[in-house]
Amino acid sequence: MPKNAFYAQSGGVTAVINASACGVIETAREFARQYPDKIGKVYAGRDGIIGALTEDLIDTSLESATDIARLRHTPGGAFGSCRYKLKSLDEHRAQYERLIEVFRAHDIGYFFYNGGNDSMDTAWKVSQLAATLDFPLVCVGIPKTVDNDLALTDNCPGFGSVAKYVATSMREAGFDVASMARTSTRIFVLEVMGRHAGWITAACGLASEAEGEPPHILLFPEIPFDPDAFLTRVKQCVERYGYCAIAVSEGLHDADGRLIADMGVKDAFGHAQLGGVGQVVAQLVKDKLGHKYHWALADYLQRAARHIAARTDVEQAYAVGRAAVEAALARQTAVMPVIRRVSDAPYAWEIALAELKHIANVEKKMPRDFIAPDGFHLTEACRRYLSPLIEGEDFPPFVRGLPDYARLKNIAVAKKLAAFEV
Amino acid sequence: MPKNAFYAQSGGVTAVINASACGVIETAREFARQYPDKIGKVYAGRDGIIGALTEDLIDTSLESATDIARLRHTPGGAFGSCRYKLKSLDEHRAQYERLIEVFRAHDIGYFFYNGGNDSMDTAWKVSQLAATLDFPLVCVGIPKTVDNDLALTDNCPGFGSVAKYVATSMREAGFDVASMARTSTRIFVLEVMGRHAGWITAACGLASEAEGEPPHILLFPEIPFDPDAFLTRVKQCVERYGYCAIAVSEGLHDADGRLIADMGVKDAFGHAQLGGVGQVVAQLVKDKLGHKYHWALADYLQRAARHIAARTDVEQAYAVGRAAVEAALARQTAVMPVIRRVSDAPYAWEIALAELKHIANVEKKMPRDFIAPDGFHLTEACRRYLSPLIEGEDFPPFVRGLPDYARLKNIAVAKKLAAFEV
Repeated sequence: MPKNAFYAQSGGVTAVINASACGVIETAREFARQYPDKIGKVYAGRDGIIGALTEDLIDTSLESATDIARLRHTPGGAFGSCRYKLKSLDEHRAQYERLIEVFRAHDIGYFFYNGGNDSMDTAWKVSQLAATLDFPLVCVGIPKTVDNDLALTDNCPGFGSVAKYVATSMREAGFDVASMARTSTRIFVLEVMGRHAGWITAACGLASEAEGEPPHILLFPEIPFDPDAFLTRVKQCVERYGYCAIAVSEGLHDADGRLIADMGVKDAFGHAQLGGVGQVVAQLVKDKLGHKYHWALADYLQRAARHIAARTDVEQAYAVGRAAVEAALARQTAVMPVIRRVSDAPYAWEIALAELKHIANVEKKMPRDFIAPDGFHLTEACRRYLSPLIEGEDFPPFVRGLPDYARLKNIAVAKKLAAFEV
Repeated sequence: MPKNAFYAQSGGVTAVINASACGVIETAREFARQYPDKIGKVYAGRDGIIGALTEDLIDTSLESATDIARLRHTPGGAFGSCRYKLKSLDEHRAQYERLIEVFRAHDIGYFFYNGGNDSMDTAWKVSQLAATLDFPLVCVGIPKTVDNDLALTDNCPGFGSVAKYVATSMREAGFDVASMARTSTRIFVLEVMGRHAGWITAACGLASEAEGEPPHILLFPEIPFDPDAFLTRVKQCVERYGYCAIAVSEGLHDADGRLIADMGVKDAFGHAQLGGVGQVVAQLVKDKLGHKYHWALADYLQRAARHIAARTDVEQAYAVGRAAVEAALARQTAVMPVIRRVSDAPYAWEIALAELKHIANVEKKMPRDFIAPDGFHLTEACRRYLSPLIEGEDFPPFVRGLPDYARLKNIAVAKKLAAFEV
């Protein structure tokens, strides 16, 4: 009897996580035709790992080949994702055992977990428990995170498309504010994602390819915020270029580790903290230097912007999904496909396998030599690293002027077990 | 002796105002070759009308045909714009006379003013004064505004591209939040431009093409905000669909005309108003219904997003620039080319001329029958009107993964007059 596969999406979704799902499902279907004794259906967890715990499985075999192919250009998580971290085996052993119970009930022999370093930790623990229980389960992680903070891989699928979106947006807003600076807005701030690692902020810097081109200042979570040095730099920019465009990481903090986002704003009753760091930083400039500002908060727009995805990113997202299935069929367990860079220019890459235990819970920050000595911009080394990741376009089809994205049927597999509380 | 032309960009810039500039300059060059006794060079005002007042003129004849052609796909204002309104002829007669003096000094016989209804008012007044002073000047307005609030034209160049951007962004963010709703974010709010008219907010609604598709709620400046009705609707959406996606106009206000943006947030010292209406509305949902939210503030990104411009919009922006020059050469003065809709589906349009005096200072709001009876969505009539405006793509060329936009040389014409304070 062939074993079925279980696939789940985990954590914040991206513009290309469904391209990985597409890679998994298309490759599994291909193998199922070739080796019908080895692999059967792919079940997806509805809302991620919660779908496994609650036995809420989606039968992807009921989706047409066309719809599965359309996942490649559809943002978000087609089966739902969740923010739900399984803790240590000691604390939550019942949950891990429940997973195995569900897998057993549905003949699941392959577990694919598409997420960040938390999820790789979960996948690793599941593989350990399966071994302990003598349950034959191949566990393969699939990298995904806009934060680009996974270890051992050249980059993380999802990141390149955010990078392309923020660099494009910053370039475009730069043209706008440059036009308006004489009589109106002189300061523009774009707040981007990145609580601990400044990769997305650095990517904004790709928009600046010559002296004076925006953005002029990047504020990284790796560099404690120094208001005086920052204001001096803003003043210089406005004097030299007539305006100043700034990108800031949501995780910007001061030397004591306090988030700058927490410093500016309270609600009318003084109790709740509102506003983003982009606004706090912009308001600081207005208060101290008197310039009118505009600010933008890209929020979900940046990670959902499939319309401006990087072709490289889409190809890599698909490739890691495909490689995960290939690895699983070769009985490789507790591994994750990673992207290995062969050369910068022209960019060449290949897929390799890394062990989950070396990826779980490790956070890759920006190397210091990717940030300019003064802390306010990226270096040439960083540009060499980032530039290939935003290359190529892969526009989705448009219908009636809008991207035509897939909505799956997501039909549930009949339950076989008693309910389980999560 | 041929007369030169003066062209200026006014007010907030757009993704396609340079396409109008391209239409003006290419058409003027074409006519100058054909009728060298009629039209000479095109001078552009550096930073808009301020460039005329300060005699800071840019000689566009020094730009290559290639660079002028590239304006068609470059956002922002290539010559700079300004927020500077000339007041009444009585109050500011000296300024109007200065304009005429500069035009006389540089042999300018054609005045093209590319802007919104304020600018059409200025162009109209300049035409009146020129007539009074017996100065031979043809004044032609060129429509531009993301707000879509100009009278007598089917729509305003600049609006269609913002509409396509916000509808695309809303659709994409909708896919994201739908994926996350089970355990995390259930509310997503996108704040868009529109102080008095809800056209951009309505355009977000194009993303919803079937029952349940996001956005679920649109908050228009034309409809006084009713918190209770709004919260009831949010509650329904979360119950039915698991989440709720909302688009809100920056100009949303209550029944007494107070801006909702002013209600939520003060800075840490209680004196400055910060935050956007998007956040106030989202925080209201959190406070009353307890749902986690995300919000995005598109700000300049929406009006600068040339990468996702609507092809129809680019074509119309170019066409009104071209038609302005044709009208001027035909000695039509105090007019503005307008877009006349011939049919909805398939969309067909043509260019006509309207008189500036009927456009100046008139603000076109959303008709009430474009807004659903309950005030929270658009109607089919509105969809029929809006849908053609976002049709077609016109992606710019990309180099190194980023849109390749034109930066002109912008070389100044030698001054001939004494300085003038603005």
